Amino acid sequence: MILTFTDFGVGDSYLGEMEAVLRRQAPEIPVIHLVASAPAFRPDLAAYLLRALMPGIAPGDVLLGVVDPGVGSSRLPLALEVDGRWLVGPDNGLFELVQRDAASVRSFAIAWRPERLSASFHGRDLFAPVAARLARGDRSGLAPEPAARFPDWPDDLPAIVHADHYGNAITGLRAARLTPATVLLVGGRPIRAARTFSDVSPGEAMWYENSSGLVEIAVNGGPAVTEMGLQVGAAVEVVAG
Amino acid sequence: MILTFTDFGVGDSYLGEMEAVLRRQAPEIPVIHLVASAPAFRPDLAAYLLRALMPGIAPGDVLLGVVDPGVGSSRLPLALEVDGRWLVGPDNGLFELVQRDAASVRSFAIAWRPERLSASFHGRDLFAPVAARLARGDRSGLAPEPAARFPDWPDDLPAIVHADHYGNAITGLRAARLTPATVLLVGGRPIRAARTFSDVSPGEAMWYENSSGLVEIAVNGGPAVTEMGLQVGAAVEVVAG
Amino acid sequence: MILTFTDFGVGDSYLGEMEAVLRRQAPEIPVIHLVASAPAFRPDLAAYLLRALMPGIAPGDVLLGVVDPGVGSSRLPLALEVDGRWLVGPDNGLFELVQRDAASVRSFAIAWRPERLSASFHGRDLFAPVAARLARGDRSGLAPEPAARFPDWPDDLPAIVHADHYGNAITGLRAARLTPATVLLVGGRPIRAARTFSDVSPGEAMWYENSSGLVEIAVNGGPAVTEMGLQVGAAVEVVAG
Repeated sequence: MILTFTDFGVGDSYLGEMEAVLRRQAPEIPVIHLVASAPAFRPDLAAYLLRALMPGIAPGDVLLGVVDPGVGSSRLPLALEVDGRWLVGPDNGLFELVQRDAASVRSFAIAWRPERLSASFHGRDLFAPVAARLARGDRSGLAPEPAARFPDWPDDLPAIVHADHYGNAITGLRAARLTPATVLLVGGRPIRAARTFSDVSPGEAMWYENSSGLVEIAVNGGPAVTEMGLQVGAAVEVVAG
Repeated sequence: MILTFTDFGVGDSYLGEMEAVLRRQAPEIPVIHLVASAPAFRPDLAAYLLRALMPGIAPGDVLLGVVDPGVGSSRLPLALEVDGRWLVGPDNGLFELVQRDAASVRSFAIAWRPERLSASFHGRDLFAPVAARLARGDRSGLAPEPAARFPDWPDDLPAIVHADHYGNAITGLRAARLTPATVLLVGGRPIRAARTFSDVSPGEAMWYENSSGLVEIAVNGGPAVTEMGLQVGAAVEVVAG
Repeated sequence: MILTFTDFGVGDSYLGEMEAVLRRQAPEIPVIHLVASAPAFRPDLAAYLLRALMPGIAPGDVLLGVVDPGVGSSRLPLALEVDGRWLVGPDNGLFELVQRDAASVRSFAIAWRPERLSASFHGRDLFAPVAARLARGDRSGLAPEPAARFPDWPDDLPAIVHADHYGNAITGLRAARLTPATVLLVGGRPIRAARTFSDVSPGEAMWYENSSGLVEIAVNGGPAVTEMGLQVGAAVEVVAG
């Protein structure tokens, strides 16, 4: 299975062009668009979202991750073998948190280059062909090379990394690292943990462990990002717990 | 074929995570995302939209319907066999109108539980595995049980149940139950039937039978929901016809 | 491979209903949604976007193109064989620019009609079944017939034809026809070419050749369409080069 994780959005040609390459070059492999609304141009935020989704990636799968503000620059194209799964994408920190959690990581630079490489769409021209090859079991075109590491990035990021379709704000904090007594401060406003919406009054905010294990902020009866004026990237302060 | 009908939106991980489960557990079955923008948290509205789409669901298909504000509460997980097609989802009225139209309905509670059941994503953890099994012909884990019924819900709902990509407003009214002379009152404004946009002046509103047989409100030359300030859930009055 | 190019948006039932028809009638053929956010009701703009994507369509593929403001009117349903690829859709100019670039074009009216043809969704009822048949190699139901041509449409359109997910504005101009010295005037504002964002100051606009070969307008550090107040359809003036 090839799973894509991108900031391409949906509806434009980007996902479809990339999927067409994958389906032509690995016709027998299912392609699933796991995330298309990763924080645009922000691998430093997307990395926390991706780590949380890794339990859904199985050995043998290829995760094609493209959040790539540096496309066209000198950043390396990267392939990582992480606990039996492949991750393919730019060497810009997108896979930093996945690596920290891993038992085994083997890191490769993608030495292969396509006949035609556009300046702005390596997802289609470079990463997708490599993902297709790896999904078929072909490891050619890779050269052992350490990935860039980002030791300053925290293990848990006290910031909003994604606003979802419902208007909930997903943070880079793992809920298992907090206690139910933890209070978050967002824009000066204290937010307590709850299990369901009915635990808080209409209009009141709460945080809970979402289905990926991350701390998510919601408002009873409305989209939290609108009601609370939250932006992707905004800081969240952990004040007790 | 497994068809999904959800309020998950597109771009977030929810559709992709659910599709990954389906593809892993029923690799030979096509998965199609039929609707991802069903009215959020409103099974009472989504039920009318889903009923209208049932002619596109064939015997042997599985409709995986997840509009589930009560996820984590005590509402039953449900599997219905309706005229040779399976419907899987929460027992919250989402399938109420489908049942009314059916010649044959067999109702089951889903007794099976996964090893790990998140509090907020039964679509991925519970309903998708069951849908995959039913698509493969495996009926294990079901126990006969009547579905909750909602007799107070009308057969045709005089309200807006969906705003589409073009800004048209789809109602819960079946056009075949009205006559071309029917006038709708929406926010005090009378709206007459027309066959095409050119039957009305620019800026004028009209209603027509959409491709699913529902009454749909449009404005010549603009998005009706913006031009008329319509919201999902807003009432529509049938004043003549 | 069947690739769809539509203005249907994503999330509504339209793409899913059409895909279900394709998958039922051509189960062995992959279906890829190439573009779902083509300019709504504007085949005259969408035609330039589609032409730019044709290098990704391979011999044997079927491009199912539905941007169809005239659905229900007398416009012809069309099938074109263009350099070994099929294009299926309304005869309204959507394929005009593709035809101009082609070495070989054979044009057919779709004579076949389905049992049930809705007034507003020929994509599902008429074009998808024909696309499925052509993908399977079945050319029945076609009658040689010249396509409508639009000789007044320029080879390169100095206008914005699409705003993408990032807020970049894609024009109908092919970058290869301009020089790096070309200046564009958009709303009185001069825009120069750049290779990357870092070539211009924060907040400054630039144009560059996008991954499809079209001239695309972006702003360093923000969505160009918002920052510059650009609308799909807005004119772009080529003032030097």
